[in-house]
Parts: sequence; structure tokens; C-alpha cells
Amino acid sequence: MVLSFHNSDSSERLYLQVYHYYRELILSRRLPPGSRMPSLRTCARDLHLSRTTIENAYLQLAADGYIISKAQSGYYVTDIAEQKPAPQKSSRPALPPLRYNFASSGVDRESFRFDLWQRYLKSALRQNERLLSYGEPQGEPDFRQVLSEYVRQRRNVTCSPDDIVIGAGVQSLLHILCPLIKDKKTVSFPTASFIQGSTVFSDYGFEVRYRNKDSGVIYVSPAHMTKWGEIMPVSRRMELLHYAGEHQSLIIEDDFENEFVYLQKPTPSLFSLAGGHGVVYIGSFSRLLLPSIRISFMILPPRLSEAYQKKAACYNQTASKAEQIALCQFIRDGHLASQIRRLKRLYTLKMKRLRAEIQAVFGSRCQIQIGEAGTSLALTLPCSSDGASLKKEARAKGLRLEILKEEAGSVTLLLSCSAMPAEDFRPACELLKSLL
Amino acid sequence: MVLSFHNSDSSERLYLQVYHYYRELILSRRLPPGSRMPSLRTCARDLHLSRTTIENAYLQLAADGYIISKAQSGYYVTDIAEQKPAPQKSSRPALPPLRYNFASSGVDRESFRFDLWQRYLKSALRQNERLLSYGEPQGEPDFRQVLSEYVRQRRNVTCSPDDIVIGAGVQSLLHILCPLIKDKKTVSFPTASFIQGSTVFSDYGFEVRYRNKDSGVIYVSPAHMTKWGEIMPVSRRMELLHYAGEHQSLIIEDDFENEFVYLQKPTPSLFSLAGGHGVVYIGSFSRLLLPSIRISFMILPPRLSEAYQKKAACYNQTASKAEQIALCQFIRDGHLASQIRRLKRLYTLKMKRLRAEIQAVFGSRCQIQIGEAGTSLALTLPCSSDGASLKKEARAKGLRLEILKEEAGSVTLLLSCSAMPAEDFRPACELLKSLL
Repeated sequence: MVLSFHNSDSSERLYLQVYHYYRELILSRRLPPGSRMPSLRTCARDLHLSRTTIENAYLQLAADGYIISKAQSGYYVTDIAEQKPAPQKSSRPALPPLRYNFASSGVDRESFRFDLWQRYLKSALRQNERLLSYGEPQGEPDFRQVLSEYVRQRRNVTCSPDDIVIGAGVQSLLHILCPLIKDKKTVSFPTASFIQGSTVFSDYGFEVRYRNKDSGVIYVSPAHMTKWGEIMPVSRRMELLHYAGEHQSLIIEDDFENEFVYLQKPTPSLFSLAGGHGVVYIGSFSRLLLPSIRISFMILPPRLSEAYQKKAACYNQTASKAEQIALCQFIRDGHLASQIRRLKRLYTLKMKRLRAEIQAVFGSRCQIQIGEAGTSLALTLPCSSDGASLKKEARAKGLRLEILKEEAGSVTLLLSCSAMPAEDFRPACELLKSLL
Repeated sequence: MVLSFHNSDSSERLYLQVYHYYRELILSRRLPPGSRMPSLRTCARDLHLSRTTIENAYLQLAADGYIISKAQSGYYVTDIAEQKPAPQKSSRPALPPLRYNFASSGVDRESFRFDLWQRYLKSALRQNERLLSYGEPQGEPDFRQVLSEYVRQRRNVTCSPDDIVIGAGVQSLLHILCPLIKDKKTVSFPTASFIQGSTVFSDYGFEVRYRNKDSGVIYVSPAHMTKWGEIMPVSRRMELLHYAGEHQSLIIEDDFENEFVYLQKPTPSLFSLAGGHGVVYIGSFSRLLLPSIRISFMILPPRLSEAYQKKAACYNQTASKAEQIALCQFIRDGHLASQIRRLKRLYTLKMKRLRAEIQAVFGSRCQIQIGEAGTSLALTLPCSSDGASLKKEARAKGLRLEILKEEAGSVTLLLSCSAMPAEDFRPACELLKSLL
């Protein structure tokens, strides 16, 4: 097999090359229907690539219907080439592979210690007895104990493990919370962008508003007031608590990206400022560990905690028990704390570097907005075409963009540094410049 | 250390013995606050028990606050004995360890190949690239492809992977489905027992009724019409479809325990009988694999699928991505099919054995109801005390029971054979007899 795969490329692009290579062979019938694909081991050896890269390519080919896995035997070419000459999704023109993604909410590939997590999950999977039964609806008791320690140490939040509810993501928690606070009727979000949150409220019949503090429920992310990382100052936090207290509004504090506040002193949580009354605290691990680990938690104030307990048995736990057990021990052993330190260091450097590369490429033609937290910045550039066309044109060249705002003659983009490798910042900016 | 642990006991009871042993040492200050617990390895060696048993005991001790884990160092005794002389939950009198559980919805400990699942999950965890990003809201595409194959082969259900939505349990799916069908206003359940289902509907403002086919939504589990495994005959299925079609009612077919129908011919699904119109099909893996793996799926009929697509981006996926990837390949490689065969064989034998043991112990004094599916039977016995007292008395002797019905002079129990080892059936029945 004579093939040149660019080993300098990231493994994501390598697996796409392997995918396209075999797709071509299958569509051109050089690999006819029914033929057996080379084993992962053989293919990896022949192409001088890792087994994982080959496996990813095969999985993608299988997902697209080109090959099929047979039990204990391997992968076989399907008759897809006979059914239709073009690939299944031929109605849309095929997009070129994605080279740079400024719009990804993923995490840095270097940031996560997969080996470590694997070890903890393996150890969790050894707890056969625990895994044979359904978990506690509220979440595993030892994990809630560890979480109560964690928020006490990091966020000065004092609560009992009995007030913590675990769920598979923030939406799963809101699905439990909303019915308990239905009588509040209205909810206010800071912006329209957290659609996963506002959808749940509106599904439950709440009137959804924006930046309206005369609402029954006020949903805020104090460390993520804007997408480019502005945080809520302490004075404003006190004001909000005072106002909510007077009007008997419930505050939902989504502590999203709080761990990425780049100030020396962490900002106090609303929950701790309020002494645990009238505030629901929500925390997540998606941005700290892997977005694919679906574990979030909420801390309920006393009255809501009581109301929840009465209904607790009506809701099954949604988070994977094995992942709860693994994360519990991972936190106990101090790995979450060091992961946060590592991420904070990494993202501080990446934000600096991205800013520097933008200034080097665009000079005085651009304007950068950047807050005290997060992994994104807002970049305003002069641009003659509209946002949608720019986005489309960029994607056609392999660059994914998120448009924040358009004005006559200019466009504002949200650039996320978290998932993109730092060495791609420069070429990605240059590609962007060539499109303007 | 001189200790006698009964190795003939199941490991669940062993770990409780270890737990009680150390709790006693801690509360009596023979292990004073701050002292280091023996390492898992040492303890396992000294007590001639497995590491897992010791680990489970330690985890329980930690969950109850007796010991605490310190990073990289081990477990240490807390000052809980000083804070309060009695254990934390001292308000309730301590129950004796559970010896026999007829009310467990867990699975047989011998039924699941943990080693195999570990292998698949490990392989999923190697797919770093995929795990670094959020998954598709609807569920991983290759997994949906495999599921569409699976239901076609096993349930004669023909659907596109685009019509399948994955979620962490049935409730997560209903949280997405209910807002789409809000205009139906009323829902009918066969019994009041599926509280996790009816709660979601009532949270969304539906009027919940029982066995009322003049409802906007009809929720049925054709293979689980009663808790003791009666299934819906095909004639009744046809009738129901006909009636629902005429009245424009939507049927939700929860295919719970369908895999455990003990007839030679599998019963046709409502979804396939209806040709995919007017029926939402729901499937789960909790009872086939591990209850702690939170993966379910629903198949939407064309109109609902369209409505869902418009809102899909508003809902995050709740199921763990790693577990989706693992289960996808597990099914592809034929392991789910063999797991089902194994379980069916196992539960058929266990049901027979349970029935025989009951007849041997109770003779003609009892009446057994048993259906064509499932892992439970209903047992009616003469009993002078009321159900609640019987349940309490049984629990005090280490036997957990579920009461189905009480009548003057008799009580009907639901006995599940799935989690209890078959060799416990006889002593559990004898213990039950001694209580009557």
C-alpha cells in the first residue's frame, strides 16, 4: 500500500484522511461489497499510524454505512456503492474537513489526563455490587459528601450532602427544579444565548424574559455574564441579592466557568453571600474534565430541599453510576484540584497567545473585548460582507466561526481558545484575514 | 487480627461485616481519630477477603463519615466518635443487615460479564478525540445506526437513525417528548405504579388517568401489563391501535421487559403493527445490562420526529458519551444478543425454581400468579396481620418484601427472582413462613 499520510498533522485530521481514502476505494468499487477490511492491527502497521486513528476512521465509515462490523470477525464493505453512487448525505455538498475551529466548546486535547481517568473508571467498574443496582435518585451518597466538601473549600458554600442533587447535565437538574418552583411563573436570563436553559423553563410554562429583575426566578452565571468572560462585580452581586430578597425572587446561580476566573482572589458565590437562602447553586464538570462526562449538581436552599425530598423517589438518577463513583474518588485524591490549576495556567497562556496573534495579524484594524474569566474573546473586524456569508465562506475553507454581532461594515466574532491547539492560532487568523 | 468472616456468604454481606467490624472499632475508640486505616491490600490479605469487599466496606465507612480518604495516602479515622457517641443516623434504630431481598429491581450478579464491559468501556475511553467534545444532542450517530439495526432485527421495527433519540433513562426522554405533545392534555397509564413516568407528565400539566383509553396519550408496556408479567395479547394490541387511530390518540409503547417474554414466538411490537404511525417506541438497557448504565432510546413517528428536529439543538444529550460508544460496539459485536439469550435462560430457570420452592414451603396454602414475561411473580398467602406490619417485621429479620395487595386474612406479595441468588429462595421462603 503506497500512501502518504502527514504524520505532522493532528490525529483528528489523520483519521479523516484514512476515512476519505477508504471511502474512495469503496465508492469506486476497488474494495467491492462483501470484502473484508484489513484488521485494525494490520492497517495500523501498514499505514504507520496508531490503532486509535484507524479505529476512529473505521467507526466513521461504519457510522456512514460504508462498512459494517460482524461479531468476532471484523469489518466488511457494504453494498452502499451499489445502492447509490454518491454517499448517503449527498443532498448537501460535502464540506471540506474542518481545519480550524474557533467555535468549539470542547476542551484542550492536552489538558485532560485520559490515562488517569481511565484508571479511576476502571476501579469504579470493579465495584460490581454497587453497579448491579439502580443508584440513589439524588445521586451516590459518598459523591454528594465529597461535593459538599469541594464547594465548601473552593466556593465557601456550606451545605449538607442531603441538599445536593446530582444529574446528567444542567438540563436534567432544571427538569427536577422547575416543577418545584412553578408558582414563580416568570424567569429572567441575562441573554438569549443559553437556549438549553430557557427551553426547559418555557417547556414548563414559564414566561421567559431577558435582563428583567422583576421576575420570579433570576438565572445568572456570575462568572460568565458575557460570552467573552465578563464577571459580575461583588457590588452588583450584593445589589442583586438585596433586590431578590425584597421581591422574594429565587436566584439560580449557575457557576459556569467560575474556575476560570483569572483574578488572584476568587469572587464570592451568590449562594455564600446569601447564607444559603433564596439561591440555588448549580455546578458542572463538563469544562473541567471532559464535555462528554455528563455530571452536574445543584444545591437547594432549605425550603426547596424539603420540597424535593418529598418527590425525590419520583425521579430516577440520570448520571452514570460508574462515572459518579470514579469522579468521587478522583476528587478525593486531589486530582480535580490539580486539573483546575493546570487548566487555569493553560488557558491563561492560550488567551494571551491568541490575543498576541490577533494583534500581529490584524494590527490596529481590529478591536478585542476580553473579560476576567473564560476561554473566549470577542473580536470586531471591518468586513464588507454579512456575517452569514462570512461564516459560510470560512467553513468552505475549513474554518468554523461563531458570529456574535454584525453592524454596517463590521462583524464581531467569538473566538474560543479552549479546544484549538495554540500553534493553530496564527494560521487560523491568517486564513480569517484572507477572507475579509 | 482474629476474625471469622463467613466466606460462604455473598460478598454483599461480607462487606457489611467488615463495615460493622470497623465501625465498632472506631466508635469504641480502639481505632482513635487520626489513625490510619490498614491499606486495602493489607486488609484484604489479613482478612482473607477480596480487595473489592474491603474497598466497598471502606467506601461505606467514608460515606458515613467514619473515615476519610487523603490524597495519595490512604484512609484515616475521623473524629466522628468524639462528635457524637452514636452513628450519624442514630435517630432511626439501626436495621439488621439485609439477608434476602425479594423487592430488588437489580440484576443477577452472575448474569453480567463485567470483564467484557470493562474492555469495551476502556476501548471507548481510548477515543480521545471523540470524548473531547460535547456529543450530538440526539445521541451518537453510529450508536443510533446500530440501534436502528437492533430494533429491526429483534422487534421488526423499521426506522431511520434520524428518528431515534437517546437519553439517560426513560424520564430524560419523556422530558423531551412531553413538550412536543402538550396539546394532547391527558395521559393514561395502565396502573399507578410507574410513578417516574406519570410524574413527568403531571409536571408538564397533563391530567394523569389510569386505564382510560379516551386519553390524548396512552402509555403502555405490552410485555409488562402487570408486575407479575402478564403480556398484552395480539388481539388486544390490534384493538388498542384501532381505537387510538380513530381517536387520534398517541400511543407510547414502553417495551420494558419485552426481552423476557418466555414464549417461543416474540410478540409483535405496537410500533411495527402500526407501521410506525401514531406510536412512540421506548427501549431501555437497564434490565439487560446494568441498571447503573443510564441509556434508553425512543423512536419517534414521522411528524414528531420533524417537530423534534426543530428543537433538537435546545436539548443537551444526557447519556454518557463513553458508555454510548462502548454499548454501540458491544451490540455490533453481538454481545447484547448473547447477553439476552443468557438472561432469558437464567430467568426462566430461576422463575421455575422459585415457584417450586414456594410450593414446597407453603404447599396448598398459597396461590401463585405468574405471567408470560418478566422476573417476578405474585404470591397470595393467608396472613392475620396487615401488610405494613408484615413488611416491617420481615425487614427486622433481614428480609425485604414488596406488598402488592391486602385483603381480610390474606396478603399478596410481589417476589422478584432477578437479583436474589437461586440458592437463597428456599431459606427466604422459610423465613417468610415463620413470620405468618
